[in-house]
Amino acid sequence: MNDIGIFKQKFDPYLQDYLDKKTKSIINYTKDSSVIDYINYAKKITLSGGKRIRPYVAYLIYQALCGKDNPPSDGEKVLKLLVSLEIFHSFCLAHDDIIDKANLRHGISTSHVYIGNELKKRIDNNYEHFGISQAILVGDLLFNWACEIISLSSEKNVRKFFFEMVEGTVIGQMLDVESKSNKNITEDLISEINYLKTARYTFIYPLFIGASLSGSLTAEMKKFCNELGLNLGMAFQAQDDIFDSDNKKYIESQKKLIKNNMETARKLIEKSKMETGYKNKFLDFIEMLEKRKF
Amino acid sequence: MNDIGIFKQKFDPYLQDYLDKKTKSIINYTKDSSVIDYINYAKKITLSGGKRIRPYVAYLIYQALCGKDNPPSDGEKVLKLLVSLEIFHSFCLAHDDIIDKANLRHGISTSHVYIGNELKKRIDNNYEHFGISQAILVGDLLFNWACEIISLSSEKNVRKFFFEMVEGTVIGQMLDVESKSNKNITEDLISEINYLKTARYTFIYPLFIGASLSGSLTAEMKKFCNELGLNLGMAFQAQDDIFDSDNKKYIESQKKLIKNNMETARKLIEKSKMETGYKNKFLDFIEMLEKRKF
Repeated sequence: MNDIGIFKQKFDPYLQDYLDKKTKSIINYTKDSSVIDYINYAKKITLSGGKRIRPYVAYLIYQALCGKDNPPSDGEKVLKLLVSLEIFHSFCLAHDDIIDKANLRHGISTSHVYIGNELKKRIDNNYEHFGISQAILVGDLLFNWACEIISLSSEKNVRKFFFEMVEGTVIGQMLDVESKSNKNITEDLISEINYLKTARYTFIYPLFIGASLSGSLTAEMKKFCNELGLNLGMAFQAQDDIFDSDNKKYIESQKKLIKNNMETARKLIEKSKMETGYKNKFLDFIEMLEKRKF
Repeated sequence: MNDIGIFKQKFDPYLQDYLDKKTKSIINYTKDSSVIDYINYAKKITLSGGKRIRPYVAYLIYQALCGKDNPPSDGEKVLKLLVSLEIFHSFCLAHDDIIDKANLRHGISTSHVYIGNELKKRIDNNYEHFGISQAILVGDLLFNWACEIISLSSEKNVRKFFFEMVEGTVIGQMLDVESKSNKNITEDLISEINYLKTARYTFIYPLFIGASLSGSLTAEMKKFCNELGLNLGMAFQAQDDIFDSDNKKYIESQKKLIKNNMETARKLIEKSKMETGYKNKFLDFIEMLEKRKF
């Protein structure tokens, strides 16, 4: 098993514990079995798939920066905190799925479709709208949980990065919706979306958060995280673009871009002051990203 | 002008300053004029109406509990923090308006209707869905701003109350949607909705937050806030119920309930250890609520 798979095995029990605790506590607010069921379904989706890439990236840099002199002894506390990144991601997907009118997520029905189908058993009209309405609110609840974890269990600099991350991600999503609704899509718009939705959200900010948690986010380290995250993000996005395209010339140019970005990312890791063990973990991660082997 | 009107005049410039600063900073993420316009429209709705009842309740108890020996010298800091309550409220309304298919808010178009109409000028299909999609995301952005303010500028106990408040409010809204989509509405369900959406959200938690900010939230004070908020909330809700009903017998019973709850609230204030000036402000506020004079 590769390192991100090992991480998922270690991380998911914390995610499950948190969601178990939170879903059980809903009974303190209501005895309504339908609302309790809708919230439990969000837990089911969150746990039924996903690669945990954002908490993994944060955890990897956190461990690498702690180093031998400053061992990551509070690993458990950090894993509990990183649960917030995955719950935030689950919130994003719940609202994205409404926006994209998606039926499936991780191989099972999306929240709004599941709730709509449950309501269809009891009512004749408007079950789709009520399904969407409840799924918007389930998303809001997940978002609140993510913010609560970050807000109650981390230092101010980590909190600051978290809310900055959210702001850019939501705006990136707005631009994405705009690109689908607008007839004039400019190069600028596409590059803003790719930067905000992929590079910044999936790599740069998880790196900032992980480095902050280790207490080692100097200006130099911030620059390193930014460059590394930007290169990984651009390559990752180009892979998606190839997947969606059938233009041979475009595919060739994107392949070149991926090769260059991955090469730059490797050089940044090799030049860094990390211990060899962590350098190798990062290099393995880059290879996995390159082959999309997860 | 009554005290809540004076408060609004003092508070709104802080709300406006914050929203001005935040909306101007969107340019750091994107140059897209449509997305910038949608976010600015959320500012317009927030500033174009609203009584500021939640920040007012929090500020009133904050000042009352500071007292002469501990004057509220950091009033400006507290007002800036309470901006989060109003922005959270604006987020709730943005998502509620989508759920309720409402066209107007504070006398102008709701966000999803405004955005849908803007898109209709440029595209022929799906403008309603894109309008709803962007309004969901504008709401998410407002929610993030509220969480960011609370998370970066308050003590841990205040943050804790804020996220508890949100949790109950979102679940209350889910129950409300359920009550509209479900054929079997029970008394239990109605009383859970009224408690979560009115008493807890509009009075009890703003009182907790304001009392926490003064540093005086003892167990005894928490009990006082809970009882006061519960009585005000139940009366407030009964007023709404009368407004929506044409059953004379029901209206009479609700009027009796309002009278009893307001009387209990008055007694709680009179028995409290607050200074006379603040007691009178609370009594005026209760009278205003009784007459819905704002």
